[in-house]
Amino acid sequence: MTTPQEYAHANAERFREELNTLLRIPSVSTDPEREGAVRDAANWLAKNMRDIGVENVEVMPTAGHPVVYGDWLKAGADKPTVLVYGHYDVQPAEMADGWTSDPFEPVMRNGVVYARGSSDDKGQMLTHLKSFESVMATEGKLPVNIKFLLEGEEEIGSRHLYDFVAQHRDKLKADVCVLSDSGIRRVDEPAITYSTRGLCYMQIDVTGPVRDVHSGLYGGIIHNPALALAQIISKLHNADNSIAVPGFYDDVVQLTPDEREELKKTAITDDDVKGEIGVPATWGEEGYTLRERVGARPTMEVNGLLSGFTGEGSKTVLPAKAMAKISCRLVANQTPQRIYELTKAYVASITPPGVRAEVKMIDKGDPAMIERDSPEMKAAVRAYTKVWGAEPIFMREGGTLPILATFRRELGVASLLMGYGLNTDGAHGPDEHYPIALFHKGIDTNIQFLYEIAQLNV
Amino acid sequence: MTTPQEYAHANAERFREELNTLLRIPSVSTDPEREGAVRDAANWLAKNMRDIGVENVEVMPTAGHPVVYGDWLKAGADKPTVLVYGHYDVQPAEMADGWTSDPFEPVMRNGVVYARGSSDDKGQMLTHLKSFESVMATEGKLPVNIKFLLEGEEEIGSRHLYDFVAQHRDKLKADVCVLSDSGIRRVDEPAITYSTRGLCYMQIDVTGPVRDVHSGLYGGIIHNPALALAQIISKLHNADNSIAVPGFYDDVVQLTPDEREELKKTAITDDDVKGEIGVPATWGEEGYTLRERVGARPTMEVNGLLSGFTGEGSKTVLPAKAMAKISCRLVANQTPQRIYELTKAYVASITPPGVRAEVKMIDKGDPAMIERDSPEMKAAVRAYTKVWGAEPIFMREGGTLPILATFRRELGVASLLMGYGLNTDGAHGPDEHYPIALFHKGIDTNIQFLYEIAQLNV
Repeated sequence: MTTPQEYAHANAERFREELNTLLRIPSVSTDPEREGAVRDAANWLAKNMRDIGVENVEVMPTAGHPVVYGDWLKAGADKPTVLVYGHYDVQPAEMADGWTSDPFEPVMRNGVVYARGSSDDKGQMLTHLKSFESVMATEGKLPVNIKFLLEGEEEIGSRHLYDFVAQHRDKLKADVCVLSDSGIRRVDEPAITYSTRGLCYMQIDVTGPVRDVHSGLYGGIIHNPALALAQIISKLHNADNSIAVPGFYDDVVQLTPDEREELKKTAITDDDVKGEIGVPATWGEEGYTLRERVGARPTMEVNGLLSGFTGEGSKTVLPAKAMAKISCRLVANQTPQRIYELTKAYVASITPPGVRAEVKMIDKGDPAMIERDSPEMKAAVRAYTKVWGAEPIFMREGGTLPILATFRRELGVASLLMGYGLNTDGAHGPDEHYPIALFHKGIDTNIQFLYEIAQLNV
Repeated sequence: MTTPQEYAHANAERFREELNTLLRIPSVSTDPEREGAVRDAANWLAKNMRDIGVENVEVMPTAGHPVVYGDWLKAGADKPTVLVYGHYDVQPAEMADGWTSDPFEPVMRNGVVYARGSSDDKGQMLTHLKSFESVMATEGKLPVNIKFLLEGEEEIGSRHLYDFVAQHRDKLKADVCVLSDSGIRRVDEPAITYSTRGLCYMQIDVTGPVRDVHSGLYGGIIHNPALALAQIISKLHNADNSIAVPGFYDDVVQLTPDEREELKKTAITDDDVKGEIGVPATWGEEGYTLRERVGARPTMEVNGLLSGFTGEGSKTVLPAKAMAKISCRLVANQTPQRIYELTKAYVASITPPGVRAEVKMIDKGDPAMIERDSPEMKAAVRAYTKVWGAEPIFMREGGTLPILATFRRELGVASLLMGYGLNTDGAHGPDEHYPIALFHKGIDTNIQFLYEIAQLNV
């Protein structure tokens, strides 16, 4: 009798061809001219899901691109329900961006497939359909109930998914969420991400005179808004590069000693950073390693500055206003609203009397964290260990996946980030690529995970 | 026998008509389509100069708009030579900018002529031709030698005049320079400007990573160039708002007690500033009045800031670079080159190790000052006192007239700023206007000045 994994291996070439078919659909969600392609990708997935035995498959409309839903709920009420999340839309890609070959005509070179979406997220997402197929085709059933939620707007901020999840709370109800949309470090190093950071994106507008004025007439007698803004920004960090906003760290879940040990396994070195992006030195909050700073600690960045004359040459203007985009990456259990309020109050307290400053919040996302010793996580660890022959390392993600907080809040469910991409896949850039070995390893791991998670008490 | 002033009064209406004719020529130097009009203005002036007895009149080509030169040198070698400087080009002006009437069709309302260039500088410049005419027509000669240097590129930075002056050093040689291209406070308050500030305009470029990076991946482990720039800028001033660059004040000519008394006559109040431009409070270097800060003290301003994402909404970019335009207004005897070198060295000393900073000088101009008790100044004071019935007050100009430093350097000559405009004339803006009483007062003052300066020992 064939096992699901044997089935997966026997069908490896067809699985790859299916991936190639999906990759050929240019489902660029941000491009209005590609709306049809986005729909084609949704329909292709729906058909594939129906073909492999997923039930109740629907291409569900939203105010934007559709959500593809499907489930198989016949494992019984005593078995856990797994919600699989993924996205079938991709970032824009044009040859002119520097691609070596057509981004929507996948090419395999040395075991690596080159195409837009190969890693982010079509390749990783498809592992879950192919693991479902492999189990269903060999066993005729699954050891757990399963729901698929595949969206078409992840690359444009999941615009309509938050409302969609809230509106379909019962339909999406599950015991654990699984997603594969993140990178690991090496093909031979299994890793699970257990936290993502939140976001509080703000804009500071400093205003002074009612109009731009002549620096020879008013320079030196009024507070220059660009100077005042720089002075405000310079007070956002302490001398040890920690954030100076009072109360900023109040809700931060502190790193435990064993967590710090775990994070050392994925240590980032000064030379790594200097080599990757050419900075003369690293920087950051004293008392924390680079890995801890980028994953386990909140940050406050200046994303943009604009004031006065910015063209070539000189113009002796004293600008009426100055603007900064400031964003914080948050960690559990910080909330964007509280961080916004604290920052706003602090900026008000340090704004010089000669100018006015306004702080607005313009984007936000909650951080998410799943306990490393939770039963769901332990199931995943067992799956990885059996398939990869090595225990997965635990990682914290520096970026933000706000949808995880929505899953937590609306569905009461924790999310496991079983990333099967590599950090170096070049997602969002030219020549995005994906080591096909990870595609197959992902399918195997997902299969095993279904059996491990089936032991979860629900 | 008619005196020159009686002649001027008898011909007042014709003088105003001549001014109107000149104002109708749209000599906008920055507009390539108006090149012909600029030339027309030059030719009109040349003809008018010939008509009134100026000799050796030439419209002299430059690489840009021409210089109009003329002289009358028959007063004798024992008489001083006065160089009159003015400019016949104007700022752009369109009805769409908010003009009440056609900017190139002068209209007189309540003794005020509305037209582009009425105050800056056609009206003020023409006072010198009409005073020449008034003396020549009544006396048949002048008490001094005189040279006219009228340029057509003042509003575009006198691009070719610096070289022109250097190339025609002998031709332009004089004992004193006089110009009327500045504003006084009230029609009944005679004033002479005895200093203008210099300029050192710099650009600071801070660079970090070789490209824009993701704030979730690199935020908190590399020094954000926009943050670093703000931190650098925040160290340019001390807590008392003086400039923190070591050595910055070394060459500053300090205010004398009697000079401070004199400047009190044109005191600026907090309410003036707040009322004019709507700032919540004034600002500046402790220990100096607003008037002193704006005229007698050097400043350092931020003219522009640019970094990263500056559009609507949010983008979580960690910018590769950040730029600031920084300019200093200088006072005698500071030099742009030295201030640049000091600033560059200081910025290097405060640049954090995680970024690189470059400081470039992109524009410069020397400050100029004429002693208030010099013989030239005393002659001007006597002229004002006789014509206005009141001693002129002494003012310092906050802006920069770099050509004055060129006159000083190339011709060895000090410049008297006999301003006959009002600060409130709206030069450069819509509805520029000029109280015609100042036009006539200027002519009278110039006539008297020629007789007073004739007493100068040369």
